[in-house]
This record gives sequence, C-alpha cells and structure tokens, in this order.
Amino acid sequence: MKNDERYQKGLANLEKVDREGGKSVIKSLTGLSEDVGRYIIEFAFGDVYDRGVLDLKQREMITITTLLTQGDTEPQLNVHINGALNVGLMPEEIIETFIQTIPYVGFPKVLNAITVAKEVFKDRGIDFTKTNRIE
Amino acid sequence: MKNDERYQKGLANLEKVDREGGKSVIKSLTGLSEDVGRYIIEFAFGDVYDRGVLDLKQREMITITTLLTQGDTEPQLNVHINGALNVGLMPEEIIETFIQTIPYVGFPKVLNAITVAKEVFKDRGIDFTKTNRIE
Amino acid sequence: MKNDERYQKGLANLEKVDREGGKSVIKSLTGLSEDVGRYIIEFAFGDVYDRGVLDLKQREMITITTLLTQGDTEPQLNVHINGALNVGLMPEEIIETFIQTIPYVGFPKVLNAITVAKEVFKDRGIDFTKTNRIE
Amino acid sequence: MKNDERYQKGLANLEKVDREGGKSVIKSLTGLSEDVGRYIIEFAFGDVYDRGVLDLKQREMITITTLLTQGDTEPQLNVHINGALNVGLMPEEIIETFIQTIPYVGFPKVLNAITVAKEVFKDRGIDFTKTNRIE
Amino acid sequence: MKNDERYQKGLANLEKVDREGGKSVIKSLTGLSEDVGRYIIEFAFGDVYDRGVLDLKQREMITITTLLTQGDTEPQLNVHINGALNVGLMPEEIIETFIQTIPYVGFPKVLNAITVAKEVFKDRGIDFTKTNRIE
Amino acid sequence: MKNDERYQKGLANLEKVDREGGKSVIKSLTGLSEDVGRYIIEFAFGDVYDRGVLDLKQREMITITTLLTQGDTEPQLNVHINGALNVGLMPEEIIETFIQTIPYVGFPKVLNAITVAKEVFKDRGIDFTKTNRIE
Repeated sequence: MKNDERYQKGLANLEKVDREGGKSVIKSLTGLSEDVGRYIIEFAFGDVYDRGVLDLKQREMITITTLLTQGDTEPQLNVHINGALNVGLMPEEIIETFIQTIPYVGFPKVLNAITVAKEVFKDRGIDFTKTNRIE
Repeated sequence: MKNDERYQKGLANLEKVDREGGKSVIKSLTGLSEDVGRYIIEFAFGDVYDRGVLDLKQREMITITTLLTQGDTEPQLNVHINGALNVGLMPEEIIETFIQTIPYVGFPKVLNAITVAKEVFKDRGIDFTKTNRIE
Repeated sequence: MKNDERYQKGLANLEKVDREGGKSVIKSLTGLSEDVGRYIIEFAFGDVYDRGVLDLKQREMITITTLLTQGDTEPQLNVHINGALNVGLMPEEIIETFIQTIPYVGFPKVLNAITVAKEVFKDRGIDFTKTNRIE
Repeated sequence: MKNDERYQKGLANLEKVDREGGKSVIKSLTGLSEDVGRYIIEFAFGDVYDRGVLDLKQREMITITTLLTQGDTEPQLNVHINGALNVGLMPEEIIETFIQTIPYVGFPKVLNAITVAKEVFKDRGIDFTKTNRIE
Repeated sequence: MKNDERYQKGLANLEKVDREGGKSVIKSLTGLSEDVGRYIIEFAFGDVYDRGVLDLKQREMITITTLLTQGDTEPQLNVHINGALNVGLMPEEIIETFIQTIPYVGFPKVLNAITVAKEVFKDRGIDFTKTNRIE
Repeated sequence: MKNDERYQKGLANLEKVDREGGKSVIKSLTGLSEDVGRYIIEFAFGDVYDRGVLDLKQREMITITTLLTQGDTEPQLNVHINGALNVGLMPEEIIETFIQTIPYVGFPKVLNAITVAKEVFKDRGIDFTKTNRIE
C-alpha cells in the first residue's frame, strides 16, 4: 500500500514543505500508529496539497492560520511555520498573517503563535529585528 | 472621533472589501452599539487591513480561513466570501482555501463553509459548475 | 429524588434567574431526558448558583461571557441575557460585557451575541437607543 | 479515480451508516466541489470506517461525541444520529452518550445535541417517552 | 455532606475508573477548592457515571473522544487514557478511537492525543509495537 | 504614533491592571512585532478597558472567564489572574468565577484554570487554605 502513487506524491510534497520537521512527526508515529502517518502523507500531502489552484505558499499561509485559530497546536505550528519558510514565505508575511487574524480571534491566540514563531526564527538564525522595521 | 484618519482609512478599506455587505453590518449595530461598528472600522479595517506586506486577496484568504476554523460564523463568512470575491479571489480559490483546511479541522466545518459559499455564489449568479471542472 | 433539598434550592434559583425562559428549557426536555433537566436544576442551580461569594448579577455576567466565548449557544444566550436582566443587570452592562471580550475573542462572536441581545431587548420592549447615548 | 477500491469500500460503508442522509450530503456537493464528496467517501468511509478493531456502533458513538463537542455541527449531528440508529444504537444509548459528556463540555452543547436528536427521533416515529422510563 | 450516597457512589466509580490518577487530581484541589473535587466525585462520578445503559468501557471511550476534541486537555486525557485501560479497553481500541475522529477534527488534535497515549503506554510498560501489527 | 492619547490612556490602564506582568508581554514582542504590543495598549487597554460602565474588577472577571473558556491561554490567564488581584478581586472571587463556569464548559477547563491560579497565589504568597474555609 505504501508504494502507491498517492503515497509517493505525498512524500514529495511533504519533503518540499516540511523537510526534516514533518518526517520526524511521521517517524515518531512508527510502532504506535503508522497508519496515521500514512494518512497524513497520502491524504493531507498526497491528495490535498497536490491539488493545484493554490501554490504551496498560499497553502502554508492557510495552514498556519487554521492552526493558530484552533489553538493547542504548538507542535504543528512549529512544523508549519518552518514549512512556510521552506516554501518561500518571508518572516514578515508569517507575522503579518497572524496579525490579520487579530480582529477575528483576539490577541491571546496571536500572542501564542508569535511565541512559536520567535522560537522558529531563532532556531533558524533569522534576525527578525533587522527585517521588520516598523514605526 | 469619527472623523479621524483611522476611521477614514478604515472606511475606505471596508468599501474595497465588503461594499454593501460590511456596511449593512455596521448599520445594523447603530442604536445598539455604534462603538462596536466604529471599532471594526477603526481597528480591523483602519489599523489591520491597512498594514501592507499582504495584499487584500491574501487578507481575505486568511480571514475566511480563520472564520471557517472557529465555527459559528455563518454571517461573517457570508460577508467575507463576498469580500474575497470583491477583492479578486476566484471562486475556485475560495473553495480550494476551504479544502486546504480539511486535514487540520476535518470535514464538518468545511462542509458548513461550502454551504455558505454556495449561497453567495448563487446570489451573485456565479455558475460554479462551469468554472470548476473536476474529475 | 426530585424532592430533595438540592432540587428545591435549584428550582428557587432557576426562578430568580430565568423565570419562564429556564422553565421552558426544562419542560422541553420532559419525555426525552428529564434527567438532564434535573441535573441542570440540582447541579447548576442547586449547587453552583447557590454558593454565595458572588451575587446573581455577577454569576449571570460570567455566564453570558462563557456562552459568548464558546459560540454556538444562541438559545442559551437568549435565556441568560434574559436572566441577566431579571437579576438586575442593565442593558448597557450586558452590551459592555460583550465589548470587554473583543480583545480576547475577536469581533464575530461579539456580533453574534449582540444580535441575540437585540432580539431579547426588542422582545422585552427595551428601547436601547434611548439608554445608550454614545459619541 | 472514482472506481478504485477505496471509493467502492467507502460507498459500501456510507450506505451502511448513512443510507439516504449521507448520500444527500454527497449529492449536494456535486457541481460545487465533488472532490470533497469523494474525499469523504474515500478517506472517511473507505479508509477510516473500514479499519476494523471497532464496530460501526462504536464508530458512530465516537462520531456523535466529537460532533457534539466541537459545536456548530447541527447538519452533521442529524446525519450521524440517523447513522447511529441505522447501525443499531438504541435511542437510549444515543441520549446516554450525550449525557456522559456533560461533565466535560457542560450543558449547552448537550442541550443542542438533544434538540437535534428529538427532531431525528420524531422524523423516524420513535416514541422516546415509551422507551425511556426514568424516575 | 461528604458522606452522602452520591459521594460514596462517586468515589466507588472514581476508583474503578481512575485508581490513583483521579484521586491525585482530587487531592491536588485540597485547600484551594475542595468543592470542585467534591462536585467531580458527586456529579461526574456519582450521578453521571452511575447511570447505567452504557458500561464503563463505553463511557471512557466517549470521555477520551470529547477530551481529544476540545483540545488543551492533556492532563485530563492522561487520566482518562489510564482510566480507559483500567476498565478494560485495549490499547488498540484507544488508538482506534482517536483515529475515528480524524475526519471530524483533523490530524493535529489526534496527533496530540496519540502523544499522550504514548506516554501512558510507556509508563505502564505496554509495548504497543507488539500488539499493533499494521501493514 | 506611540505618543497619542489612546496609547497613553492604554498604558495607564495596563499599569493599573497588569503592572509588571503586562509590561513583560509587551516587552517580549519588541523586535518581533512591536505593532501587536501597540495594538494591545491602544485598542485593548486604551479603547476597551477605558469605556466605563463596568469597573476594572468586573472587566477582569469577564476577561478570566473568556480566557478560561477558550482554552490554551495559560500565559494570558496567569497575567489576568494577577491583574484581577491587582484591581481588587479576592482570591475567593477568582476561584468562584471559575466554578460558575462549570455547568457551561465542564470540569477540564476549570481544573486547568485553577492550576494556573494555584501558581499565581503561591507566587504572591497567598495562603488560600486560610481564606477559603469550605465544608
């Protein structure tokens, strides 16, 4: 089952988006529920991410928005903020995506998402103070 | 207070995004809580929508994603699906935005959002079956 | 079981808060699940509402806040906006309670709650435009 | 793509669970987003419902619990309360499932779910007062 | 008040379900809010868990489903995954319960719940890789 | 922009409510998104907290209720339980506010909020066992 076309397409998309981050989620499921990892690859990355119409930058923008909004998704936000950077979103665009949700979800969830972004940016050596001149 | 710069910028952005839809929300608040309408114009549309970095198409994509995700937002989804079309998103891109959230929120909320989109498309005379050839 | 002290205390508190509104919820459960109605009376109104420390105005302020925040609670908001008025909260205080949540939950849920409040105020003949002079 | 094994298995499971209710959801998506209908059949009913370990009665019990808990899922609750009855859950077991969630989600969502159940039971001519002798 | 019948029934049910896990929650409330602990015993375990119609395995299946769905319930999921095992659910059935929710809540909440289950299984020396042969 | 009247009013209100706690949130945003910190001061504390009708004790009671209800807001609950104490709410009133929500949100979120309150009370040297004699 693992070698079918959906799985291969999904794996290719997962690698574009998540690189090591996503793979380690899949790996951490091994032995407990490989099937969930397989569904993520086949359904999320093989079916959904592969549909076209939207590009990967748009898809990651949508993904970090839905993760921020539902809350209690810190590990997934970490993976997909990394994913957003991997497919070419700028740090400013990620923070700006979070800010756009403030009128709809309020400040607490946005502060939580920014906290995760700060960790990701720091881990990747992004000096956000330089790239984000606001006054 | 209503004549300050934030209010005027907000009103201009509201008109770009929501046209009559947004105005009727603001109008419906008159007499009960004009202040909430004013905050929507000043803060949501004057401060946040006016920030740059992201364009209005991206901002509406983020907005319909966060509304879909939190649920119980049918009137707001109606306004912002209209808003998304007003600023230039294609019907396919709106439906595709909803589909991208399936792996993160499941089917029920996506079905609810598609139901609202169907009404909006019908109200605007958009024949989606013609524009969305899927097989 | 129905005649015990908790049930009687609960019924007395229910009558103070909800008058006909709450009773009709309990009545609508008859035949389907009387037990749920009984738990509402015994646990919610007999145990919790009867605790002291906070008065009924504070308890209703907390209740409408938690209902607004979780969303999809229109019938319960209707009952407890009525309840809030019954125990002495002013219409302005109810709307102000909703406005205080904006920075924490965003505008959509607040707009939904205000819509319910408008119906309740109208049903009770409250002319809010007279009592709420804002500029 | 529609004729593959996953789709056929999914369709068979959908028919066991939802009979006409589920089919009408799928049909209502035609022309707007057939793909979402296809994913529901392939992924939800073809992959997930077909896994074994749990039987369909358990799967529907889990489904109505998760729908009740997230809220704003009235149409889906209607379909799956019907589904629960179709696969052999008793009306009492459905109401009891809802009651078990009270300590974890509170009364409002449970009252909303019972309201939907009442409509379903009435539509199917189930006289719940006869089958639910509580004192 | 503590010695009444509801409290005693609740304590007996709590011991069947949670053994040490639940007791330590109750104990941790001592001095801050014993009343909340008492309500959990009297209402959740004395009234609700004691109702019959569903057995304890079904009640725990419902409980872990509602906890997974609402999110931000890691400590409670830990207690009730333990509880589910205590009353006789198999590790496979717990993981399968989580997987059944994927089409309704998406992957993130399911991954979070599996993470908690992994810890619980590890703490109890359950070698899930042996009992869960999937291909 | 920072020196306008809204910012100054907001800063004054922030100092009344959060003292060091709120300032450290604002400070932690410096360099990543100062604008979010500015919006919190201008909109949340300058516009909303400054409205009158409700006093700061009522506003903090509403705030901790909405934070508890949405979940995944531990850092914000910590700040606003401190804020509630700063503006004059008694520890008993804070715990009682949480208890009032049990019938509407269930036990898990209330237990989580009490856990945060325990930490805050401990940090401030409040011996709650002395002030909370319940039997």
